[in-house]
Amino acid sequence: MSTGVWLIGARGSVAVTALTGALALRNGLAGPTGCVTELPELAGAGLPALSDLVFGGYDVASVSLAKKAGALADAGVLPAALVRALEEELVAAEQEVHPLPVAGDQAGTAAMMAADLAGFRERHGLANVVVVNVATTEPAAAPHPAHADLAALEAGLAGGGQVLPPSSLAAYAAFQAGCPFVDFTPSTGARLPALDRLAARQAVPYAGHDGKTGETLVKSVLAPMFAMRHLRVRTWSGTNLLGGGDGANLAEPGPNAAKTASKQKVLRETLGYVPQGDTRIDYLEDAGDFKTAWDLVTFEGFLGRRMRMDFTWHGCDSALAAPLVLDLARLAAAAHRAGRSGALHELAFFFKDPLGPAPHGLADQWRLLCDFAAGLPEDGVGDGDGDGDTR
Amino acid sequence: MSTGVWLIGARGSVAVTALTGALALRNGLAGPTGCVTELPELAGAGLPALSDLVFGGYDVASVSLAKKAGALADAGVLPAALVRALEEELVAAEQEVHPLPVAGDQAGTAAMMAADLAGFRERHGLANVVVVNVATTEPAAAPHPAHADLAALEAGLAGGGQVLPPSSLAAYAAFQAGCPFVDFTPSTGARLPALDRLAARQAVPYAGHDGKTGETLVKSVLAPMFAMRHLRVRTWSGTNLLGGGDGANLAEPGPNAAKTASKQKVLRETLGYVPQGDTRIDYLEDAGDFKTAWDLVTFEGFLGRRMRMDFTWHGCDSALAAPLVLDLARLAAAAHRAGRSGALHELAFFFKDPLGPAPHGLADQWRLLCDFAAGLPEDGVGDGDGDGDTR
Amino acid sequence: MSTGVWLIGARGSVAVTALTGALALRNGLAGPTGCVTELPELAGAGLPALSDLVFGGYDVASVSLAKKAGALADAGVLPAALVRALEEELVAAEQEVHPLPVAGDQAGTAAMMAADLAGFRERHGLANVVVVNVATTEPAAAPHPAHADLAALEAGLAGGGQVLPPSSLAAYAAFQAGCPFVDFTPSTGARLPALDRLAARQAVPYAGHDGKTGETLVKSVLAPMFAMRHLRVRTWSGTNLLGGGDGANLAEPGPNAAKTASKQKVLRETLGYVPQGDTRIDYLEDAGDFKTAWDLVTFEGFLGRRMRMDFTWHGCDSALAAPLVLDLARLAAAAHRAGRSGALHELAFFFKDPLGPAPHGLADQWRLLCDFAAGLPEDGVGDGDGDGDTR
Amino acid sequence: MSTGVWLIGARGSVAVTALTGALALRNGLAGPTGCVTELPELAGAGLPALSDLVFGGYDVASVSLAKKAGALADAGVLPAALVRALEEELVAAEQEVHPLPVAGDQAGTAAMMAADLAGFRERHGLANVVVVNVATTEPAAAPHPAHADLAALEAGLAGGGQVLPPSSLAAYAAFQAGCPFVDFTPSTGARLPALDRLAARQAVPYAGHDGKTGETLVKSVLAPMFAMRHLRVRTWSGTNLLGGGDGANLAEPGPNAAKTASKQKVLRETLGYVPQGDTRIDYLEDAGDFKTAWDLVTFEGFLGRRMRMDFTWHGCDSALAAPLVLDLARLAAAAHRAGRSGALHELAFFFKDPLGPAPHGLADQWRLLCDFAAGLPEDGVGDGDGDGDTR
Repeated sequence: MSTGVWLIGARGSVAVTALTGALALRNGLAGPTGCVTELPELAGAGLPALSDLVFGGYDVASVSLAKKAGALADAGVLPAALVRALEEELVAAEQEVHPLPVAGDQAGTAAMMAADLAGFRERHGLANVVVVNVATTEPAAAPHPAHADLAALEAGLAGGGQVLPPSSLAAYAAFQAGCPFVDFTPSTGARLPALDRLAARQAVPYAGHDGKTGETLVKSVLAPMFAMRHLRVRTWSGTNLLGGGDGANLAEPGPNAAKTASKQKVLRETLGYVPQGDTRIDYLEDAGDFKTAWDLVTFEGFLGRRMRMDFTWHGCDSALAAPLVLDLARLAAAAHRAGRSGALHELAFFFKDPLGPAPHGLADQWRLLCDFAAGLPEDGVGDGDGDGDTR
Repeated sequence: MSTGVWLIGARGSVAVTALTGALALRNGLAGPTGCVTELPELAGAGLPALSDLVFGGYDVASVSLAKKAGALADAGVLPAALVRALEEELVAAEQEVHPLPVAGDQAGTAAMMAADLAGFRERHGLANVVVVNVATTEPAAAPHPAHADLAALEAGLAGGGQVLPPSSLAAYAAFQAGCPFVDFTPSTGARLPALDRLAARQAVPYAGHDGKTGETLVKSVLAPMFAMRHLRVRTWSGTNLLGGGDGANLAEPGPNAAKTASKQKVLRETLGYVPQGDTRIDYLEDAGDFKTAWDLVTFEGFLGRRMRMDFTWHGCDSALAAPLVLDLARLAAAAHRAGRSGALHELAFFFKDPLGPAPHGLADQWRLLCDFAAGLPEDGVGDGDGDGDTR
Repeated sequence: MSTGVWLIGARGSVAVTALTGALALRNGLAGPTGCVTELPELAGAGLPALSDLVFGGYDVASVSLAKKAGALADAGVLPAALVRALEEELVAAEQEVHPLPVAGDQAGTAAMMAADLAGFRERHGLANVVVVNVATTEPAAAPHPAHADLAALEAGLAGGGQVLPPSSLAAYAAFQAGCPFVDFTPSTGARLPALDRLAARQAVPYAGHDGKTGETLVKSVLAPMFAMRHLRVRTWSGTNLLGGGDGANLAEPGPNAAKTASKQKVLRETLGYVPQGDTRIDYLEDAGDFKTAWDLVTFEGFLGRRMRMDFTWHGCDSALAAPLVLDLARLAAAAHRAGRSGALHELAFFFKDPLGPAPHGLADQWRLLCDFAAGLPEDGVGDGDGDGDTR
Repeated sequence: MSTGVWLIGARGSVAVTALTGALALRNGLAGPTGCVTELPELAGAGLPALSDLVFGGYDVASVSLAKKAGALADAGVLPAALVRALEEELVAAEQEVHPLPVAGDQAGTAAMMAADLAGFRERHGLANVVVVNVATTEPAAAPHPAHADLAALEAGLAGGGQVLPPSSLAAYAAFQAGCPFVDFTPSTGARLPALDRLAARQAVPYAGHDGKTGETLVKSVLAPMFAMRHLRVRTWSGTNLLGGGDGANLAEPGPNAAKTASKQKVLRETLGYVPQGDTRIDYLEDAGDFKTAWDLVTFEGFLGRRMRMDFTWHGCDSALAAPLVLDLARLAAAAHRAGRSGALHELAFFFKDPLGPAPHGLADQWRLLCDFAAGLPEDGVGDGDGDGDTR
């Protein structure tokens, strides 16, 4: 049986890169570089095959997938020859990419979404469907009493209230439809107590927060290095220059604050203290999808001696994120089939701001991930049980 | 009972920084920043206290310890106030720093060394003595049949042959005297099959190779990061600019080759392949003890997309190395008392080119070190018999 | 005859470094590195000798000069041995450093300042006195009609109005006292039409704006390089991390805006267009007086090919600024004696945001400066005329 | 009348990029970014139009121009769409690209070359032909007595001797044919006293040495900046990582030494002293035509304070070099028509190691270039007689 991947933001750079890449891999046109789940340490786990993924999703934009892929090729994100070779398949993929449904109230919208997910699952005879949020980052949501309590949430929605930010409404709908949910952005998504409760009740797992693709990835190995060597980090200052839709959005104060808070957690968690310095995100339109980050670290060694290091990271965000989306869809699907529900803190490896009691150092996250994958049943696909998702 | 630390190269920058630092810590004039064995994860282990270390050693140079410490203060390695405060103790430490003994042949020299070590142990009533090589790096030694076989080695020495490079002769003498040996440099030292055999016979442990203090330390976390993310490193090029005695020496082709080979191993071991690119060491007299390293890494991500990062490391070599010398002395002493002999591959964390079947990624090395320390008997100190070779 | 240098902010880092340096040079304890006016191209000009400078000034702080110099030594700005050697002279210099005078209104304050300047000149028999503003940067001043017109300004002051920001009041007082004025900060200072008119009437010259010591200095050679090679700069993004009093102040939105605007002008003026990207100033307390700037430049070459460069500048701000303060005092004094009045656009070399119709590329500024110095009368000191300062 | 450009190394990356670019500009498919002679300061000069250049040349390789252009597009040097659009014209350009002639001795080879140049000039009715050496860098040539004296050289050649390195033989042939010669590489070329004499006799100008496209370009503005500010550069260390044919060749000790010597001259000439530190060129095959250079500069400021800066340059060598080849061809042709002969030191702006008594700072070189261009006769084109040596 195949596995569904439902992308919120399906016409965005990350989604189209992930989709194009999955098609390329299925057709033998590219290797699995960047796909963590294709490493030997994880490849043995009971994960759905890359070639068994079926894609669908929502987007508010209407650009065609093929055109978007072409634009990504022009921008240097995708190889032009690959996009040409896959044009037909990209056109075919349009079938399952839809505008976001809008009903009169959030309860109605969520019901439409859940129906879409069920329809997608049935049309393709899917073992299960993982919903992945790769839409534009929202501003931090205003607090609301219904966020903390599932009964209050359901009452609020039933009463016609607009109580959830869009990313959380998507998580709500996913859970209602019995689908695992992955928060690839810093938006609120499933990270509300009421939604955590709902996931438990529906016996679906979820993962998040905020895919770790560049500067924070590097931080998550360098900060532990300083800690392990008993070197005292005095300052850690970061500057991120990026363009593209993500950059434009993150230049807005709301999303920017959400993101930079997310990017600093790794220091507090791995060092045990917070060094001086801030992380900046500046919009640089011309940079497009290529982000340049510069970090300066000053530290103190033996007898107070001050030293320093800096690094520059020049990465293509969508190319770094896309394979992780595929990894997360596979892992969440397998966890679901294995009967896991609630927060998957074992997937901290992939996130800037991981859920639950999870380590922040990359090596510890890696070990946790490998142990998790090793514990998945080999024959997870096809005869899944213990998760009640009524196939 | 106290523990002895016998430094080969006792008047060099690393040794004098280690000595001054140990005196500062003992007198409450400085904190343990940079001392790995003072981290909570290791502090509980059965290690001799920093304040119980007694220092002695050899050097070919004759500059006084106080004068050398003053020069290190002028160069910004040591705090000037600290050096002034410890002047008297530095003068007192002269008592146990001696010229290298020279007999008519290597067997005679080794016997004089072993006698010096025994005398040092007895004069101070030491539980045991760890010999640490922090002398100038030698050129790679010419192969010799006696290196591979202990009987041949002993026969060769007995016959008056000059069969060992100086660092290996020091290891030989240490083992003969029942002393653990630590190779902090890339010189050959104990890393000969004949000496490994001797260490086993004498029931003494040894550790090495080549303290990992800067560029290679960073490599040992970044390279695993690329591997864990399935990103293909295409090139890794490094430039090291350093002055000081170490820099001048490493500018010589012989030692330079020894060192750069040592610095590249981490890539092959953690990535599983060797990317293009070289590591350079260039002498820059004016840099003194402050090394600047620049590394450029280019890598390939999803669908072949090329990306890059570079980092600059500006560290004070002696300040980075000195606390590790103290760590290694404590750990080797404790291992000795715990009955360990032969290569201590669990100390790979400290070395560029670790002995034996050891991991090269820093996080794995850290775990191995913590497990090792946790396994040391708590009451290791106090019931040692002075050389530990009669258990 | 000697020349007076009256520092607004005389107990600040820049002023104390300049004073200590001038004393060191006079006593043969240091060479003139960093002093532009000691280069062969300028040394022949009719400038007052460094040893003929007499220092005084104002400050709101009360820390002693010797104590401040000691703190600068601890921070690595000044050599400790130099500060010790000059302690007596630093104590003697206290004689002419005073609290800022405060009268009931600005007119009264200005009169007290002018009297202080006249008194300083007479007490020391000075040829003239140059007032240099090295005080903390002010927020951009609110516009006021009296700024544009000298009569309105004088009427406003006479009427008891608070019409000038502090830096401009200092310029006003200087001009009233017949003293040249140098704006070393981005504060408003003399840059008001009414003050320009006053300088002309009083026949005194003035110079400014905002000493160019680091990132902007580099920009002023790199931007012309791109222009001369017909390479199109697409983006230029800068991050400045600095601590110290200057850093703390520049972290305030008002002064920060004043400064970053000043730092970007060089691009528009030398490239002829404004590339994308911003210049940031972030406060990093721990950095103290040592500023780290990182700039990323992306550019387009032949047939649209994109390329990039970045640079990191790690400078000690006070050490870079202090010799320029001495240079400017000498040059402004000589210009005054040579009969120049009004804006000295020939000193653009020294400033981020130069006055008047001046080039922004460093090489053109250098040529202008050399020509200016060459035109100064050789025997400018002692028999100066044409400036009416009544010696 | 048109102007000929004869490229030695016509199938190499620089030549094919220059040719493709000239075709693109002529067809309005690209703008003149990177072409110095299209800047307003030079555009008014009496230069042949870009659209009036006719290309020919030699190469030992046999790859077709269109195929090479395609490879450059794949490597990211040329836009793929441009190469497709110009394919026909690239095929047409094959007509005038020939294998290097080889006779039994150097005199014969030179005669064949001179005949080729004359034939090219006649076939296309060219005003004159500029020979530009863009071939692979040679090792430094062994000294030979005939290099110093024209009569000895002619005697040596007449006697069948192999007295000139290939680049110098090309210059010899060019001069014999009455053609200006441009040395774009560090090879010996025209820089022999005997050839200088020959150029004077033949009344042809020549220019060189070694196109300045990246690291040295930056040095030529930064080093003067330090000098103008009286900052003492203590060390300047450079690392260049490059691939491509040029990189492979420069990894050979001979050419490498020639090139690094050339790259360091700018420091001695602009600073007046030689700081510590070396410039390295390392071959990194994977880098292809994209060179990354990293330079670290440490300097001393006021009162001995040490500071530092570093920069990273990531440029596409062929894209940087190609427009300069067009610039130099136009300038050399115009100089020829204006009656200039011998070394054109006014073109120092373009070279790492300029000929004759020329400044090394870029700004001074720029001024010299502008003055030179301004002095060219407006109507230089059209009344040339094909070699200009009879005015």
